[in-house]
Amino acid sequence: MGKKNFLKKPPMGWNSYDYYDTTVTEEQVKANAKYMAENLKEFGYEYVVVDIEWYSKDAGARRADFQYIPFGNDEMDQYGRLQPAVNRFPSSADGSGFTHLAQYVHDLGLKFGIHIMRGIARQAAHDKCPIHGTQFTADMAADAWSICGWNPDMYGVRAGEAGQAYYDDLIKMYADWGVDFIKCDDICDSFLYPDSGRIKFSGYEETKMIHRAIEKCGRDIVLSLSPGPAHLDRDFFYEENANMWRITDDFWDDWRLLKEMFWRCETWNGRTSKGNYPDCDMLPLGQLGYGFGQERTSNLTFDEVRTMMSLWCLFGSPLMIGAELTKLDDVNKAQLTNKELLRVMDGKHKGFQLRRSDDEAIWLNIDEDGTELFIGLFNLTDTEREIVCDINDIKSGAAIVHSASAITDVWNGKSGEWDAAEQGTISAKVPAHGVVVYRLF
Amino acid sequence: MGKKNFLKKPPMGWNSYDYYDTTVTEEQVKANAKYMAENLKEFGYEYVVVDIEWYSKDAGARRADFQYIPFGNDEMDQYGRLQPAVNRFPSSADGSGFTHLAQYVHDLGLKFGIHIMRGIARQAAHDKCPIHGTQFTADMAADAWSICGWNPDMYGVRAGEAGQAYYDDLIKMYADWGVDFIKCDDICDSFLYPDSGRIKFSGYEETKMIHRAIEKCGRDIVLSLSPGPAHLDRDFFYEENANMWRITDDFWDDWRLLKEMFWRCETWNGRTSKGNYPDCDMLPLGQLGYGFGQERTSNLTFDEVRTMMSLWCLFGSPLMIGAELTKLDDVNKAQLTNKELLRVMDGKHKGFQLRRSDDEAIWLNIDEDGTELFIGLFNLTDTEREIVCDINDIKSGAAIVHSASAITDVWNGKSGEWDAAEQGTISAKVPAHGVVVYRLF
Amino acid sequence: MGKKNFLKKPPMGWNSYDYYDTTVTEEQVKANAKYMAENLKEFGYEYVVVDIEWYSKDAGARRADFQYIPFGNDEMDQYGRLQPAVNRFPSSADGSGFTHLAQYVHDLGLKFGIHIMRGIARQAAHDKCPIHGTQFTADMAADAWSICGWNPDMYGVRAGEAGQAYYDDLIKMYADWGVDFIKCDDICDSFLYPDSGRIKFSGYEETKMIHRAIEKCGRDIVLSLSPGPAHLDRDFFYEENANMWRITDDFWDDWRLLKEMFWRCETWNGRTSKGNYPDCDMLPLGQLGYGFGQERTSNLTFDEVRTMMSLWCLFGSPLMIGAELTKLDDVNKAQLTNKELLRVMDGKHKGFQLRRSDDEAIWLNIDEDGTELFIGLFNLTDTEREIVCDINDIKSGAAIVHSASAITDVWNGKSGEWDAAEQGTISAKVPAHGVVVYRLF
Amino acid sequence: MGKKNFLKKPPMGWNSYDYYDTTVTEEQVKANAKYMAENLKEFGYEYVVVDIEWYSKDAGARRADFQYIPFGNDEMDQYGRLQPAVNRFPSSADGSGFTHLAQYVHDLGLKFGIHIMRGIARQAAHDKCPIHGTQFTADMAADAWSICGWNPDMYGVRAGEAGQAYYDDLIKMYADWGVDFIKCDDICDSFLYPDSGRIKFSGYEETKMIHRAIEKCGRDIVLSLSPGPAHLDRDFFYEENANMWRITDDFWDDWRLLKEMFWRCETWNGRTSKGNYPDCDMLPLGQLGYGFGQERTSNLTFDEVRTMMSLWCLFGSPLMIGAELTKLDDVNKAQLTNKELLRVMDGKHKGFQLRRSDDEAIWLNIDEDGTELFIGLFNLTDTEREIVCDINDIKSGAAIVHSASAITDVWNGKSGEWDAAEQGTISAKVPAHGVVVYRLF
Repeated sequence: MGKKNFLKKPPMGWNSYDYYDTTVTEEQVKANAKYMAENLKEFGYEYVVVDIEWYSKDAGARRADFQYIPFGNDEMDQYGRLQPAVNRFPSSADGSGFTHLAQYVHDLGLKFGIHIMRGIARQAAHDKCPIHGTQFTADMAADAWSICGWNPDMYGVRAGEAGQAYYDDLIKMYADWGVDFIKCDDICDSFLYPDSGRIKFSGYEETKMIHRAIEKCGRDIVLSLSPGPAHLDRDFFYEENANMWRITDDFWDDWRLLKEMFWRCETWNGRTSKGNYPDCDMLPLGQLGYGFGQERTSNLTFDEVRTMMSLWCLFGSPLMIGAELTKLDDVNKAQLTNKELLRVMDGKHKGFQLRRSDDEAIWLNIDEDGTELFIGLFNLTDTEREIVCDINDIKSGAAIVHSASAITDVWNGKSGEWDAAEQGTISAKVPAHGVVVYRLF
Repeated sequence: MGKKNFLKKPPMGWNSYDYYDTTVTEEQVKANAKYMAENLKEFGYEYVVVDIEWYSKDAGARRADFQYIPFGNDEMDQYGRLQPAVNRFPSSADGSGFTHLAQYVHDLGLKFGIHIMRGIARQAAHDKCPIHGTQFTADMAADAWSICGWNPDMYGVRAGEAGQAYYDDLIKMYADWGVDFIKCDDICDSFLYPDSGRIKFSGYEETKMIHRAIEKCGRDIVLSLSPGPAHLDRDFFYEENANMWRITDDFWDDWRLLKEMFWRCETWNGRTSKGNYPDCDMLPLGQLGYGFGQERTSNLTFDEVRTMMSLWCLFGSPLMIGAELTKLDDVNKAQLTNKELLRVMDGKHKGFQLRRSDDEAIWLNIDEDGTELFIGLFNLTDTEREIVCDINDIKSGAAIVHSASAITDVWNGKSGEWDAAEQGTISAKVPAHGVVVYRLF
Repeated sequence: MGKKNFLKKPPMGWNSYDYYDTTVTEEQVKANAKYMAENLKEFGYEYVVVDIEWYSKDAGARRADFQYIPFGNDEMDQYGRLQPAVNRFPSSADGSGFTHLAQYVHDLGLKFGIHIMRGIARQAAHDKCPIHGTQFTADMAADAWSICGWNPDMYGVRAGEAGQAYYDDLIKMYADWGVDFIKCDDICDSFLYPDSGRIKFSGYEETKMIHRAIEKCGRDIVLSLSPGPAHLDRDFFYEENANMWRITDDFWDDWRLLKEMFWRCETWNGRTSKGNYPDCDMLPLGQLGYGFGQERTSNLTFDEVRTMMSLWCLFGSPLMIGAELTKLDDVNKAQLTNKELLRVMDGKHKGFQLRRSDDEAIWLNIDEDGTELFIGLFNLTDTEREIVCDINDIKSGAAIVHSASAITDVWNGKSGEWDAAEQGTISAKVPAHGVVVYRLF
Repeated sequence: MGKKNFLKKPPMGWNSYDYYDTTVTEEQVKANAKYMAENLKEFGYEYVVVDIEWYSKDAGARRADFQYIPFGNDEMDQYGRLQPAVNRFPSSADGSGFTHLAQYVHDLGLKFGIHIMRGIARQAAHDKCPIHGTQFTADMAADAWSICGWNPDMYGVRAGEAGQAYYDDLIKMYADWGVDFIKCDDICDSFLYPDSGRIKFSGYEETKMIHRAIEKCGRDIVLSLSPGPAHLDRDFFYEENANMWRITDDFWDDWRLLKEMFWRCETWNGRTSKGNYPDCDMLPLGQLGYGFGQERTSNLTFDEVRTMMSLWCLFGSPLMIGAELTKLDDVNKAQLTNKELLRVMDGKHKGFQLRRSDDEAIWLNIDEDGTELFIGLFNLTDTEREIVCDINDIKSGAAIVHSASAITDVWNGKSGEWDAAEQGTISAKVPAHGVVVYRLF
């Protein structure tokens, strides 16, 4: 029972996937970490996460045919544990895994994270590798009927002694490396094993095993579950076992997905609490797509980026930047580092939706001491629009609305006096796909 | 925007369905109301609800073939509004509907409720009845493609001017009668029009129209939505438009359904708030089934009834008794009127699940001032069982656990001193299918 | 047991729907019938079918909102039987229904057909009309839970004495009018009542009732079932009870639908036999769409029309023309009246698919005496293509291929000598979306 | 194009599965083959089929946990081709596979068959074994996303050069061994990859590859596809590529499954032709279940066995005996060897259903020269029943019925004279779950 309570606010950081796909190298991770330490750390960004297939020596080599090469050339130790590919992460050549890279990140005052696939390497199971420190072999832990619908690397792990022993050892190795954050994939939703299917999805049991292993490992490791959409009726389960869970399939730079996220946030409205963060996925702004074959500038417009940042923050989602940081321009950097908006990311604020239609949405966010209220007026249509909120409708934040004396427009920075008695409404002209966020205090 | 805030706690009362099916009469309603006033009112029970087809003159006449007789003999006024069947509700003979019966109930210090089917009488649409006080006719409001999968009386109402006008007038008539509670059926879940179906379910739009009509009608009317299971991803919508929504299909006296309710409550865990009550359905204890063709004593055992009462209360569900009240024995009466347990029904307590497995469940419930904590230890297995809760796991209620000095066993009434420092755990031997509830204060 | 064996070949004729939607009038039907008698009869076309809602006095009046007006103004007799709308079919003013129009068609040497919706008029059920010649009333036959997902006129009919009596009387009335062909709709496939649904689709039982009524009525009436797609696993049932059944949802002038029909025909390959005709739906060539709001010329190209005609014929589908006949141009008239191709429509030929890929299809058709073989080489791609058929692959028709001495190109009319021994293959350059059909004899 | 036409009648034989599960040995196969040669061959039984996992050295060793042991101990050659387990099939010790066993079977005048799983051994793919006689390796042929939902041995094979090369070599090896019959599993229906699923089922492409490989291999090998239910809309595909396809999931000795088979046969009615045999699965009579952990006598009653034999024969299904032959008693032997009934298995008879209800079914079977008609009257109820067939209903066989002069009761052997003119009907008193079959000639 009980997940460690070390995580006090939604994680913020950077993830290599949106720009690098499977191909990121040690140098590239370091460069992004350095940028973060110098430019973003003061705003709360701290996690540097190496995403999928860091163990692959030939990642990206057959990109036209496969995102993930089947029977590919992976770095694996004698115990069937996948290791960083030495050709991409040279510091792992001494067999220390990510130890040196983690140290580098830690030395910058940041935290280090990795992506893993649920399960055990298929190759390890067929090779019957011993599970380190146990009498078990990998085939005893592996579930030959549990595969991932899109990545060919792993078998699921069967619940049982061998399975728990495997995960205990694996997580301990990660802890020893200095891992602070694990994004575990193929564990939250599976199209191949639907709840109504004939084979029970092993992901739920594996989540529990990984959670138990983290509890035992002696290090505070954030557990993030992918892919989404997470199952709303399992919220209690996620809260018991994880820290973050994706509420959507991969989010990309597409207005339709961004608009749809308002619906998704509504369904998870009120489900965020300390240590439990429903996750809207990475922020695909700036430069993207390099590892996918073609670098591109994000398709999200200036206003859409503001909408994204505002929704993620007011809802309380983790903020993981998808852009290549070293190529970030000033505009996007400013969008990511609005100090006024980021106040709500301190773990002491709570967001909730006030209303939503096909045309507009309003989100509120209040600090636990009741000293300030943020209100986001979102325009979901394709034309500019006046959005009006009757202050009588603001139930949860009514006291603040009435006691507040100042108002700030969070995005343009202008402030003024506020007198609720004089104002019947809070309103703004909001650009198409855009947002206006006010802070009352 | 905005549902009236008159409803401060989960409704408690009696509903005619479990005993009478479609057949209840004015005299029977009065007898149950009288019993409630004399025996249950002091414990918080106040709503007297006449369930389905009170407008049917031949209800129950062809029970072997039909629960709801198609093209049956219904009381309808010239405006296509269904009226109480005079042969069953004689006081309505003067055209005043339920006015006199509601008055009788009000005079007992209680509140009066009715069941309605979503929509407009099919007969009214085919007769093209004028909608009272408007230029519209019933066929203009009716949606010929929206029927109920199990009851043949109504067409759904199309969103639009005629539809809103119809509902406005209908709800106004109910308000004039003195109705305090509307249980609207075929509006929450529909197997005939699934979300993935080719015809959009009109129930959502009708919920909004009814909500608007209630807002306008000048009377505080509770809106209860049936049948379940309500859709978890529409919680925000329910909160905007209704007061109660069924989280399950009809609940009956069957252990499997009771055990399943623990899963259902888990999925709605934390979704209860002032005015918003996910609903576990009626309490099928005591005498049941008379109108269904065969009166029977509930199949729920003594311990199962305690489990049911404890779960409904700790979760925060409305409590609507299904038993024929005039036949209630002392044992069941005691189960319904445990003052210690019913403390949590005051609208100032909030429940949440601590954990659940296939074998046991633990629920907590805390008052908003933080002075008392209830903990229910539920045994979901078929044999007696020691259930243990480590007090370190009680996060939300930790402060109370530590400051409390007394403990009461809610169901056996015994009290004692409590010293958290001396106790590492809260535990009890719990009978099969049973529960032990403690109050710490 | 046993369907009358009067129908010896696939029906050919004209249907009012594709051009007139719900709006066709007596004069228009007569004009088309006259055209058919003068121009098409000699080629085998003989059925003149009045399609949906001939009983509606206001059909088409609210076309922007409804194709089928709910609670519309329908002609109905005292027995709840829908009658031709007198404003559209003046000859029915004497209460004789379609008697005079059928007589007109018969006098031209043609046959007369009507479209009906499965069931009994909803209005009749709510009015409790007596069923003609019985003690029953319409509400006793009607199934209040059986509606059509797209047309609001009828309730389904419950299997039972009242239901059979209703259909017996109804079909007898049609027989008395002189009806030779009934296209019954909402009876073959229903999206509202899927086989896995909670309410059993009454269409299957109604098909049986209608079949029995036809057997009793004293007239040879073709029974055609709509809409499709018919259910392949119920083929035996269709053969027992009907003459035609639609293998597709409505077919229109769209290449994608035409290409898809090759797949559909493959699945019904070999299921055609005397009296049993899986049906590819009407031929939407020439002028279409007038009653839908905008007359248009068919989007099918010259080659696509040939492909359609060739597939329908070689497969053995009924041929019901959708075009307004009086506006038929010479080109389309020629496409419809290729005597060489229409040889296969004599009820003594049988078609079967030889092969199909995404790029091409080959169909064969052989007469029962084994004197001639048709082979259709279909190009399903967007560019011209050589299609080659090895004559060794022609198993069923091998004898004919080897004994034949002549070959005709069915569409261009050219003939030549044929010597199988000299030819290893049958082949042709076939235009995109086009076909070459040869006759060997 | 074109499947070899060597298979002139539905295969008859024995299969090891129903009795031995995965565990059959060479000695046991030989004993059954010997029994067949001495007792059943004269009746047409000729195929001796070794069912699933003959390559497994530890088959059955962990039966409580696994029917098919994951990462089990399988015999595999250097080319990744599974070989008979030497501990079970000692004659394969010289590396000749099933050559000697096949020879033994052939020497008895019988034919030899094996079961295979679709795909390539997973171990071979992970070991990157060379594909014999090619430049490819197993991982190039394997599809890492294609597994079997119930057996863990194989990966599916991707369509392409490597895949075809693999199958070509594999089937050639089987041909060299002397294999006459391949029952390929996990290739006909897959619950894990439904047609609506996100991953396309590779079984269809693999069927084509195996078919092509058989065409090339130089030996007449029957291809039988499992498991069912086969997809009715792919009948054309099955006819192009295979000889038999299962129309049901595994059939066992259970009346409900037997009764259901009547529905299944109806849906495939008329789809049997030379070389194409929809397959009702093995005949589970006599002694069964030994390898499953507990030998048992079939639960099918005497009458049910007759019903099964009669349906399989009149429908035209292959007949594969599931019983351990050496333990066959005289009664069951007689049921399997009714010469009169087995006349219809000569490849010159064709069966079709006359009618079916929940209570009874009637099947006909006629020889292609029109000299004899079999009629099976099946009682599907639980009580004895008179079943009557009006001879006017026998359309297809009418000529025979009228010209026949003799009638034989196929199961009791009694014969008599027949005069259609004197008889209006063919009828019999039929026991519950039983059948009476007449032969008219």
